[in-house]
Amino acid sequence: MIVVVCLNPALDITHHVPRVDWAGVNRPTAVYARPGGKGTNVARILHSFGMDVLLTGLAGGTTGSAVGAGLRRLGVPTAFTPASGETRRTFSVVDGRGAVALFNEPGPQVSAAEFKRLRADFGAALAGASVVVLSGSLPRGLPSGAYAELIAAAAAAGVPAVLDTSGEPLREGVAAGPAVVKPNIDELAALAGRSLRTADGQISLTAVVAAAAELRAAGARAVVASLGQDGLLAVTGEGCWHARPPAVAAGNATGAGDAATAALARGLLLGQPWPERLAHAAALGAVAVAAPVAGEFSHADYEHAVGLVTVERLAVAAGCPVTDSPARAHAVGASVEGDR
Amino acid sequence: MIVVVCLNPALDITHHVPRVDWAGVNRPTAVYARPGGKGTNVARILHSFGMDVLLTGLAGGTTGSAVGAGLRRLGVPTAFTPASGETRRTFSVVDGRGAVALFNEPGPQVSAAEFKRLRADFGAALAGASVVVLSGSLPRGLPSGAYAELIAAAAAAGVPAVLDTSGEPLREGVAAGPAVVKPNIDELAALAGRSLRTADGQISLTAVVAAAAELRAAGARAVVASLGQDGLLAVTGEGCWHARPPAVAAGNATGAGDAATAALARGLLLGQPWPERLAHAAALGAVAVAAPVAGEFSHADYEHAVGLVTVERLAVAAGCPVTDSPARAHAVGASVEGDR
Repeated sequence: MIVVVCLNPALDITHHVPRVDWAGVNRPTAVYARPGGKGTNVARILHSFGMDVLLTGLAGGTTGSAVGAGLRRLGVPTAFTPASGETRRTFSVVDGRGAVALFNEPGPQVSAAEFKRLRADFGAALAGASVVVLSGSLPRGLPSGAYAELIAAAAAAGVPAVLDTSGEPLREGVAAGPAVVKPNIDELAALAGRSLRTADGQISLTAVVAAAAELRAAGARAVVASLGQDGLLAVTGEGCWHARPPAVAAGNATGAGDAATAALARGLLLGQPWPERLAHAAALGAVAVAAPVAGEFSHADYEHAVGLVTVERLAVAAGCPVTDSPARAHAVGASVEGDR
Repeated sequence: MIVVVCLNPALDITHHVPRVDWAGVNRPTAVYARPGGKGTNVARILHSFGMDVLLTGLAGGTTGSAVGAGLRRLGVPTAFTPASGETRRTFSVVDGRGAVALFNEPGPQVSAAEFKRLRADFGAALAGASVVVLSGSLPRGLPSGAYAELIAAAAAAGVPAVLDTSGEPLREGVAAGPAVVKPNIDELAALAGRSLRTADGQISLTAVVAAAAELRAAGARAVVASLGQDGLLAVTGEGCWHARPPAVAAGNATGAGDAATAALARGLLLGQPWPERLAHAAALGAVAVAAPVAGEFSHADYEHAVGLVTVERLAVAAGCPVTDSPARAHAVGASVEGDR
């Protein structure tokens, strides 16, 4: 079982309005309310693969009830720890002429007692877990070491962790020794304290590899940086790889990151070799970009996309590479087999 | 006890954003979620006067639960009939630079079986009622004669009704003989099928009186038209009056109408003479305009405003007046006493 932790879930409300009057009264022609938050997205995606998943975290108030009810309707098993604060909403207004306005509520304040209960519930869930995923920002009131505590508890139970967060919770989480961390390039640059781009704004693979190597040195066993349209760059104990998806349209970037995280957790559980794992993660991220709702992607498109991903092994110097010249590049369908 | 019927309540969500990016991500600095819908507003206002009130209607889903929880926190007694559809949300984005965008969800579809249960619950509530208020639009699925049915049931139990709605539900409701109907000028014009304004856009009191008289002829025992800043015009079996509030700023026009409806119901219960009743209704409407939230007005401001309302008795011809020249005008503080 994969246990997913979502400490700050949300009810994602979307209004479609043909022509929005930004200073008047609008009557949406379509209204959606769906469970959201990065961990929730990861759990939905894993569930869509038929994986045995359990979504945990903190939920409270009638909005928390709405999130729980939505997940029950989707068939995603949940074991949220009750919280006194009201779970947050996100509100998207989709103008038929193209603009999308997003309004993200800050979410509840969590008490120390509530986090203590969460830790106890998480400890109980670990008994049946093979992998844990910790994804998203921390709600207010939690210590920045909250993810580190949960990763340490998982490690003590022999369960590897996949971490997708940013800032101080990422830095402290890395020190707790997760199996995989998946920062995006901006999050990785923020942690490194320097730009990871060249003077003309292009991503510098060399700089990304160096920053990822620092996170490995700080405790993470593998670092997979998501680079948007440039795919995924992995720095692991077994080598470094750059996985490039087929060309993708601009779209749901958050959803793409969550899809990559889900695929990395699945690959960890299945023991996929890194090139195969990255090919699946890059392909899932690419099809998720086109899906407005997490988990509602076409599995046929995904299967097709896996074959279009190229995975390059990067030349590795001592510790980690200092050059980004590819040792070899290949289409994945066959190459993954060759890498085994 | 005043029984208030709110068939289409709402959860009113408000986000305050200092500078809205209408095509990007916003983080509201203040978030409010409050029970809403016209009937809910009326009940909150009556409750703030210490009146014995019971809010009934249809509520469903987690949004319905949130409305119920919010009313419990406010101390407003409720007896909603459960519905399977999700109660609607309204969503307001208040830009710190002045603009307000409002997004009104359509609300649930109500089944015939649910309306049957509502009628039964309403019948039970009538046993303790002295006045009933029916306010707001009908949810989808209800017959346009829904209010008429409830008014007839109230009449059979000897309970007078105050009706505030529009269109066909108003037309059919009028035929059921409510004690008071409170259309605004646009609703009255729509029902009359003609403009009630002069060529230069000013409200024609003569035209308003004539249209109101038609509603009396069709069954309403009294008609009080709300005219925005021009106050209230009442056509009753005891005469016609025009109540003018002190000058008010532009603001919450919906709230002002609900406040007037609440005051008219209270005046009916207390047996206030029409001039006094109208003075209170006009004053409450005026202070409600300035209150962003129903029921959260200053009672001191309201007491002060009552004394500033002028109530003119209009010259009445046979049946109802055909002239709007005032028979007399007076400040209400003293004049109300003189009218007794």
